[in-house]
Amino acid sequence: MFSTPDAELVSLSHVLDLAGTFVFALSGAMAGVRRKLDLFGVLVVSFVAANAGGITRDILIGAVPPGAINDWRYLVASLLAGIITFFFPSTITQQWNRILLLFDAAGLALFAVSGTHKALAYGLNPIMAALLGMLTGIGGGMARDLLLGEIPIVLRADLYAVAALAGAAIVVIANMLQLPPGVATLVGAALCFGLRVLAIRRGWHLPVSGTDK
Amino acid sequence: MFSTPDAELVSLSHVLDLAGTFVFALSGAMAGVRRKLDLFGVLVVSFVAANAGGITRDILIGAVPPGAINDWRYLVASLLAGIITFFFPSTITQQWNRILLLFDAAGLALFAVSGTHKALAYGLNPIMAALLGMLTGIGGGMARDLLLGEIPIVLRADLYAVAALAGAAIVVIANMLQLPPGVATLVGAALCFGLRVLAIRRGWHLPVSGTDK
Amino acid sequence: MFSTPDAELVSLSHVLDLAGTFVFALSGAMAGVRRKLDLFGVLVVSFVAANAGGITRDILIGAVPPGAINDWRYLVASLLAGIITFFFPSTITQQWNRILLLFDAAGLALFAVSGTHKALAYGLNPIMAALLGMLTGIGGGMARDLLLGEIPIVLRADLYAVAALAGAAIVVIANMLQLPPGVATLVGAALCFGLRVLAIRRGWHLPVSGTDK
Repeated sequence: MFSTPDAELVSLSHVLDLAGTFVFALSGAMAGVRRKLDLFGVLVVSFVAANAGGITRDILIGAVPPGAINDWRYLVASLLAGIITFFFPSTITQQWNRILLLFDAAGLALFAVSGTHKALAYGLNPIMAALLGMLTGIGGGMARDLLLGEIPIVLRADLYAVAALAGAAIVVIANMLQLPPGVATLVGAALCFGLRVLAIRRGWHLPVSGTDK
Repeated sequence: MFSTPDAELVSLSHVLDLAGTFVFALSGAMAGVRRKLDLFGVLVVSFVAANAGGITRDILIGAVPPGAINDWRYLVASLLAGIITFFFPSTITQQWNRILLLFDAAGLALFAVSGTHKALAYGLNPIMAALLGMLTGIGGGMARDLLLGEIPIVLRADLYAVAALAGAAIVVIANMLQLPPGVATLVGAALCFGLRVLAIRRGWHLPVSGTDK
Repeated sequence: MFSTPDAELVSLSHVLDLAGTFVFALSGAMAGVRRKLDLFGVLVVSFVAANAGGITRDILIGAVPPGAINDWRYLVASLLAGIITFFFPSTITQQWNRILLLFDAAGLALFAVSGTHKALAYGLNPIMAALLGMLTGIGGGMARDLLLGEIPIVLRADLYAVAALAGAAIVVIANMLQLPPGVATLVGAALCFGLRVLAIRRGWHLPVSGTDK
């Protein structure tokens, strides 16, 4: 289905995809541990945080069963992150926090870019492909928050979704200009990652209605 | 796919559909502004409030990608409503409230009727087609409330869903009697709209268990 | 689609499936009455609690329209439970509580087993088929809780999901060993039901991170 010119790039992208899954699952597991879920609950939130974005995208574009359901490696990566966090929560929360933010930015970049590629491959129009790429990146975190009874943090915090959308837009523009997808992947992911890291460092955020007047 | 006898009716219905999308998006945007979401969050809730009902219906009947994902005009109508509400919230909330309730009733009527037509066109049985029509009308508001961490208002407030179901039932009955769909659309939408406006004016609501004893 | 060797078993399974739907709908209706929903709201939560697990499974495996949308008997069983609970809430909550827990365990067992069979029939791999069977059993209760603004109870309470997973695993293992599906159904359902009843009686639960250290 994909227009993939380069087998090496594909397997690199797959490794990065699984790394992104693992990191997003860590974020879900940490949220679950904080809310005193039991082991099963923590594993469910891990899986959801890592895979809900991609699953929603796949349902919307008609790619069923979704990749995260069909390929057992996504399950293993999610469960592994959940188990580690559950049994060694202090390790993760204390020392890894800064590294995790970087990994999370990398996962966001990769999911946004690969999600856009997949939506384009299924014939979505450019604007919707970019939005579905963004959804792939942010959907897991939204589902994680909803499952825990919270308003999704992405709806009111800094440049998370915008960074994902910027990366997705690069992929769509490159596709319209018929540039090679490998280049689009690298530039798009780098832009998303860079924007996200800068937003964290400098505290960039979008305006909130009323308060900014 | 649709049995559409009359091109004029179709384009009228499309215009009304977009108007309904715009009004439902306004309701989502206003809820988002009240909850202090940032610009991105407000736009997401706008889109969800306007399109979640139709998207859920399309996923359930196998019409993927859903119309709201495939046709960029739904996105534009949603974003426009979100941007206006975000930057001029006082305008909307103060002066437009009564007009908005009428528009919302019109959107409900139109979504219920057009959703039922689409479910019938995809071969659903009459009862389920009417329920999916109702879902098209009320699903966006339900998703909006869930996204904001609230119990959907439609589950405990006045004759909102019943009005949608009544309009949908007209379409189904007309279909079973092989009456022309144009007539069914007009009568069904008028019934839904009329019931909803009466329910607002007279404070009609369904019983609540326990309190009515 | 199903590999069903025995017509009698199929119709038995169908009767039990509807009984499970009815009992899960009761649990949804009771939760809705407690939260002071109106009649419509109670019926919606009844339907969701009984059918959301199966609907989600069907969407994920590409079986659209989902069975619960296509077969009106699931709707009737759900609405019946909702109406009874709405108009006679004291009857249900007071005297039936213990019987309901048994019925709920039976519904869980049956949904987990039949959900696994269906996922296998649609070509899912064994691990994912077992997880989708579990999801069929627990998904309705999760959706019920989310609709009412609560963290799903299954994420933090006793051996509910594990019992469903155990029953589903039996079906998957029997399928890999090419044992007759009828035997797998009986053994899997019995194991799930037994585990669940034992968990209730003895207060078994999974560890919670932090508190068990």
